[in-house]
Amino acid sequence: MQIKHKVMVAAFAVGTAASMPAAAQFQKPADAIKYRQSAFTVMGNHVSRIGAMVQNRVPFDAATALANAEIVATLSKLPYAGFVEGTAEGTKAKPAIWSQRAKFDAAASTMQDNAAKLSVAAKTGDLAQIRTAFGALGASCKACHDDFRE
Amino acid sequence: MQIKHKVMVAAFAVGTAASMPAAAQFQKPADAIKYRQSAFTVMGNHVSRIGAMVQNRVPFDAATALANAEIVATLSKLPYAGFVEGTAEGTKAKPAIWSQRAKFDAAASTMQDNAAKLSVAAKTGDLAQIRTAFGALGASCKACHDDFRE
Repeated sequence: MQIKHKVMVAAFAVGTAASMPAAAQFQKPADAIKYRQSAFTVMGNHVSRIGAMVQNRVPFDAATALANAEIVATLSKLPYAGFVEGTAEGTKAKPAIWSQRAKFDAAASTMQDNAAKLSVAAKTGDLAQIRTAFGALGASCKACHDDFRE
Repeated sequence: MQIKHKVMVAAFAVGTAASMPAAAQFQKPADAIKYRQSAFTVMGNHVSRIGAMVQNRVPFDAATALANAEIVATLSKLPYAGFVEGTAEGTKAKPAIWSQRAKFDAAASTMQDNAAKLSVAAKTGDLAQIRTAFGALGASCKACHDDFRE
């Protein structure tokens, strides 16, 4: 019952996703950091798979682009719960994330909107539309990294 | 152009998701390891959020349960591409993953089916059904960990 026990312990530590502040989802700061970094790692991998097609480095496959775009859209919503106060140290997160939280949240929202639009573009199966949407998503990644990431 | 450049470099390294072997999705073994561990980290977090409700540690909220179950179902499909040959060292992955690959793949498939069923159960909004499906998912996590994880 090792795993079930682990799940139960974890479940005890976390809060509800919807009704409690983000910090309550994590037992300790390191968990929040690991969670957000993991979400970005997975998202980045799937962004890159679309990028390979957009940049003509691998053959375009509409179904693959759509599958990856939908994963990106799902993942785009996740990391921000992990930006709990007091979790900058030892990471690339700049203190500005917390001192300019409204600006950071707006940048996150822009990225999420662009990820959703990429998913919509991918549904058309039209590489030109996907390329445009991919460019917008990349620009919003860059904008936020410039301001909020070392 | 720092980020765009990084995306392009990453895009150059990866292959297509659908038409190439899993190994081609990753530039080096460490990338495959980081990807699969990240996917499991994110999935585990959202499993735990449902677990908290199933185990009556936080109030049941049907919408929260469903949102988390859908994330779990999406994430459940991702990690296995990262189990590239030669990526056991320094991780908890047992060599049996590769020496008994058909058994490992079957265990992964069972987990994915159970994650999908949890998502279906969550759509009913009925805690009892969610609890049953959650138990099945937990059992498939445990079964695979017992056989294939240190």
